[in-house]
Amino acid sequence: MPKVRVTRRLHFAAGHRLHNPAFDDERNQAVFGACSNPQGHGHNYEIEVTVEGEVDPETGYVLDVKRLRDLVNDRVVGEMDHANLNVDVAWLQGVNPTAENLAVQIWNRLVGHLDGVRLVSVRLWETPRNLVEYCGE
Amino acid sequence: MPKVRVTRRLHFAAGHRLHNPAFDDERNQAVFGACSNPQGHGHNYEIEVTVEGEVDPETGYVLDVKRLRDLVNDRVVGEMDHANLNVDVAWLQGVNPTAENLAVQIWNRLVGHLDGVRLVSVRLWETPRNLVEYCGE
Amino acid sequence: MPKVRVTRRLHFAAGHRLHNPAFDDERNQAVFGACSNPQGHGHNYEIEVTVEGEVDPETGYVLDVKRLRDLVNDRVVGEMDHANLNVDVAWLQGVNPTAENLAVQIWNRLVGHLDGVRLVSVRLWETPRNLVEYCGE
Amino acid sequence: MPKVRVTRRLHFAAGHRLHNPAFDDERNQAVFGACSNPQGHGHNYEIEVTVEGEVDPETGYVLDVKRLRDLVNDRVVGEMDHANLNVDVAWLQGVNPTAENLAVQIWNRLVGHLDGVRLVSVRLWETPRNLVEYCGE
Amino acid sequence: MPKVRVTRRLHFAAGHRLHNPAFDDERNQAVFGACSNPQGHGHNYEIEVTVEGEVDPETGYVLDVKRLRDLVNDRVVGEMDHANLNVDVAWLQGVNPTAENLAVQIWNRLVGHLDGVRLVSVRLWETPRNLVEYCGE
Amino acid sequence: MPKVRVTRRLHFAAGHRLHNPAFDDERNQAVFGACSNPQGHGHNYEIEVTVEGEVDPETGYVLDVKRLRDLVNDRVVGEMDHANLNVDVAWLQGVNPTAENLAVQIWNRLVGHLDGVRLVSVRLWETPRNLVEYCGE
Repeated sequence: MPKVRVTRRLHFAAGHRLHNPAFDDERNQAVFGACSNPQGHGHNYEIEVTVEGEVDPETGYVLDVKRLRDLVNDRVVGEMDHANLNVDVAWLQGVNPTAENLAVQIWNRLVGHLDGVRLVSVRLWETPRNLVEYCGE
Repeated sequence: MPKVRVTRRLHFAAGHRLHNPAFDDERNQAVFGACSNPQGHGHNYEIEVTVEGEVDPETGYVLDVKRLRDLVNDRVVGEMDHANLNVDVAWLQGVNPTAENLAVQIWNRLVGHLDGVRLVSVRLWETPRNLVEYCGE
Repeated sequence: MPKVRVTRRLHFAAGHRLHNPAFDDERNQAVFGACSNPQGHGHNYEIEVTVEGEVDPETGYVLDVKRLRDLVNDRVVGEMDHANLNVDVAWLQGVNPTAENLAVQIWNRLVGHLDGVRLVSVRLWETPRNLVEYCGE
Repeated sequence: MPKVRVTRRLHFAAGHRLHNPAFDDERNQAVFGACSNPQGHGHNYEIEVTVEGEVDPETGYVLDVKRLRDLVNDRVVGEMDHANLNVDVAWLQGVNPTAENLAVQIWNRLVGHLDGVRLVSVRLWETPRNLVEYCGE
Repeated sequence: MPKVRVTRRLHFAAGHRLHNPAFDDERNQAVFGACSNPQGHGHNYEIEVTVEGEVDPETGYVLDVKRLRDLVNDRVVGEMDHANLNVDVAWLQGVNPTAENLAVQIWNRLVGHLDGVRLVSVRLWETPRNLVEYCGE
Repeated sequence: MPKVRVTRRLHFAAGHRLHNPAFDDERNQAVFGACSNPQGHGHNYEIEVTVEGEVDPETGYVLDVKRLRDLVNDRVVGEMDHANLNVDVAWLQGVNPTAENLAVQIWNRLVGHLDGVRLVSVRLWETPRNLVEYCGE
């Protein structure tokens, strides 16, 4: 059967502050600039999760995209939306919430939970001009 | 010469209903949900066709993108636009018009008709949040 | 208090066919062209509903935009999404589902149901290039 | 001379929390829900500022749109970008940062600073689905 | 019958240079900056033309939007697309092609050619961040 | 450490004309059509530059995306914006400014200037419907 990639795009809004507690204030400011403002700021994130699998000849689906949507909502978006990513999300404790680190952690939240398809990539838009992509390597 | 990928994005509107005639009504409803409503619904599809080839040193083109546009219009968009994909398109007879199946069939409509370039992928947006991609494997 | 307009944008996918039963086939074809294909086609509609009111000094809201979202979902989007607009929606019986007629009917579904704010406009995108707007006059 | 409206769209990212200090925690939660989470969240805001004036026959401009861009950057975007709107912006002290209140305050920051044109509206997208507009009344 | 506004969005690419022949080079540079570079530059313009009229009870149309599209293509887009706006378009001779002046000239090309509906506005996006609107006054 | 791809999207407006001086006028017209109009036209280009590298455990960055933005602004966008690509840009002399050729030249401007990360691709949108991508091969 042909192999097809299926992508679901979702949205969430969250607050964050870039900060390494091992750095002093001066170094945090030098490395992270305005992203390190103590009171934090935030973004409307767009997330695209892509999986790959063979098309089921009975259904014509690789998977029901609503199942992919529900999984990402349950394990990722529902916990990040309207949260402060530095303090509110259990599985982000101790993680500096750069887009790169968020993409890796989102991958880890999803990778063991998709039956019958392969997780291909997690893409995260922090702004309409800044994008990161993680493919599990 | 350098190898470059060229993508053309096109638009069409179509109706469809997801349905497997080998399933009874209950199973069609269980598998496809509202997508299986007997009267059908529809979408504004966006399609992106990508080819790859060497840049011609005389023209600076991999191919004239208008030629790619015309091909996709002739063999795909012109037949799918304002059609009902379950009944109106000869080369979709017997195909359950999921996005996955449509991407594979569109690939098959194009793959032998591109001289001097390699077809790389067909990407089909069924909604602004749902995307499938087929690369011929 | 200052008066502010608040707009919520929502999405639905639906099928339709343009057709006047008082016309014969030839005239339907002449007036509506491919939009009149008997099997129907469909679109991803985007709808923008705008209300106006004074900002409440206690909340800083004209209204909670989630209340506007829920109202439009309950009375409009939930009934139109994945439906065939010619046959599936009770309050569209006998209506030729042009974008103009849909905008007027959506207005009528909403206008008596918004307390404390004034309904200003219903905007309906049938495609990314075609938009209609109705303001109740 | 013809009168034309000129709009400049700009972008900023900021954090905020909806909260009325005169409400107790329970009421803040009831009114603002997840938007009132104590640690705050944030958004990528898009702002559109529209002015109107006669076209200058010598330049063909109502105003140089770069002058409009610079004004909005100096007085609005430069102070809101990567800020926490509850605490970091002097002219937002004591303002509950709903989209409605922000639009009114942005208007007030701009209205006396535009020579020779009339400020028509401030439109603020808090998310791609939520928009407010203030016209000074 | 209800009055509805219908908008069609179209696209064209064109070159231009901002320049007043009554100015010397220094003043052209001071007023128009990089937009006055002698060799010109260009844009992908998006144009939105809005008309208003009563909904025809027989068709459900204010007007067939394809008729609006064809009119704008014939009288505007077909002449501006892939043209240099300073030299190639007969009805722009002597016009400094600022967005403001273009919107006014486009209005004048359309206003007498729409039967049974009222031309409401011409909106012209010069970039995704710069917009002008002319309403005929 | 995990490897992540980081993409920055930037914008510029430029003029160009497609033309091979080794062709006579008739052949230029046959090959390039309206794109070869002697006075030139132009576009709003969107450019996406993607790099890949390991996430730095101290910063959570592959690289500071502002450094990527500044590099692309300094070496590419700052020289192309509001320029005529046939004559104004030193490193495009003798290059027919097709999207394919531009992507290759932009790659060459960037590839030796990125420390510690690998340049993965340059994507260039000439219009919202036409895209090219070059990956250095």
